[in-house]
Amino acid sequence: MKKNREDTSIAFVGAGNLATHLAKALYLKGFRIVQVYSRTEESAQSLAQKVGAEYTTELSAVTKQAQLYIVSLKDTALVQLLPEIVAGSPKDALWVHTAGSIPMNIWEGQVERYGVFYPMQTFSKLREVDFRTIPIFVESHSEEDTQFLKEIASALSEQVYEATSAQRKSLHLAAVFTCNFSNHMYALAAELLKKYQLPFEVMLPLIDETARKVHELEPRAAQTGPAIRYDENVINGHLQMLEDEPEMQALYQWISQSIHRLGTQS
Amino acid sequence: MKKNREDTSIAFVGAGNLATHLAKALYLKGFRIVQVYSRTEESAQSLAQKVGAEYTTELSAVTKQAQLYIVSLKDTALVQLLPEIVAGSPKDALWVHTAGSIPMNIWEGQVERYGVFYPMQTFSKLREVDFRTIPIFVESHSEEDTQFLKEIASALSEQVYEATSAQRKSLHLAAVFTCNFSNHMYALAAELLKKYQLPFEVMLPLIDETARKVHELEPRAAQTGPAIRYDENVINGHLQMLEDEPEMQALYQWISQSIHRLGTQS
Repeated sequence: MKKNREDTSIAFVGAGNLATHLAKALYLKGFRIVQVYSRTEESAQSLAQKVGAEYTTELSAVTKQAQLYIVSLKDTALVQLLPEIVAGSPKDALWVHTAGSIPMNIWEGQVERYGVFYPMQTFSKLREVDFRTIPIFVESHSEEDTQFLKEIASALSEQVYEATSAQRKSLHLAAVFTCNFSNHMYALAAELLKKYQLPFEVMLPLIDETARKVHELEPRAAQTGPAIRYDENVINGHLQMLEDEPEMQALYQWISQSIHRLGTQS
Repeated sequence: MKKNREDTSIAFVGAGNLATHLAKALYLKGFRIVQVYSRTEESAQSLAQKVGAEYTTELSAVTKQAQLYIVSLKDTALVQLLPEIVAGSPKDALWVHTAGSIPMNIWEGQVERYGVFYPMQTFSKLREVDFRTIPIFVESHSEEDTQFLKEIASALSEQVYEATSAQRKSLHLAAVFTCNFSNHMYALAAELLKKYQLPFEVMLPLIDETARKVHELEPRAAQTGPAIRYDENVINGHLQMLEDEPEMQALYQWISQSIHRLGTQS
């Protein structure tokens, strides 16, 4: 089902960070975004404007005319609102969600053609991202729909994969560790530095190198620091410095133990 | 005390990752490395060869002729061996250590001229690093020695700072969070992916973007994921997936709580 990009009419249900970046990227590649739904008028309108689309804040007013519906809502909202979202939708439209952690079979019995379109990246409102390097994982039941989703994904990214729901779920869990939890480590460091009136910027070369290193070495081989050396003097000194931050102190201890445990496993 | 680089004779006590990278960088910039000590002959010899120096495995044979001694040992070894290391050293030599967590006053009563030369970076044997972007923090009691250390540091790096022992200690603690703990998050993700037979490489774009983001946004503003949204469905699903990894499961829970706590603080 190879078609011209402008022949593919796409509706977005949701206008959060992921939806915004994805819709803009598709629009720039020549796909036709026909409508954006968000329950927040400001979000719906703002994204719609950027991609030359109509907008609505009413689920009942979601267009019945699109060929592809990309649903990108908070996971709980997606599950709750699904019947309402798809009500009255055209039989021949393809529905996909963008969630790492939600299986494809959530669509079962709701619509006839369905799948998943999961760009694995961290999206923030204030930052542009380069879709070419973002791995996109697609899934569907039909060969034809999978091919269609892969074509769309390939227009955006050089890294397009098929992944089952089980694989996507574990990718998402691993992504929480690599991205969300790492960022939280930066955030805790930033809190510490603020307390000691030191600028967070001095950490950036270290953050960059830590990220670059695992392009060449396995993370286990790249591990450095007092926990992997089991340098008790340093560890105890750090725990003492965190005495008035009991939660950070506990985290320090648990993560250090975990580093030591993984380091001593064969 | 401006001198030609080749007039500055430097001895290294220790030949670990930091010492190796630092000695090589100094050598490439024209400083004269006269001797390398390590209790492991292979390490001492290997580094000495790279920087055109003599080597020894005996502390008692550490040269008495150097102008600058750079001591880069595991923290506990440094503390224990200090008297032995400096025994018989020339009165007018300058002694520095390279440890983030060890105060300068460890030298007190041991030698007359002393200080700290702390390059804040993660050093691995198998990876070259670019010293120009590495922040180097120096400390000493005398204006002249501080100036001397800053000149040496500036030959290597564009980011040279003076820092007190207290500041350096908090920098080091923050560095453990940003670097060692982040890397451990990558390592845990790698373990998960191995279990599901997925390649770690798919995580690299996410790791890179997570690091790049905090160049523009504060880490707290950059936080994404189920914990900051407090998406209990996703969190509970992940905890369930980790049921046969109780330690990773506990870490997931604690870090998620910490993210949520920091996210709701004003």
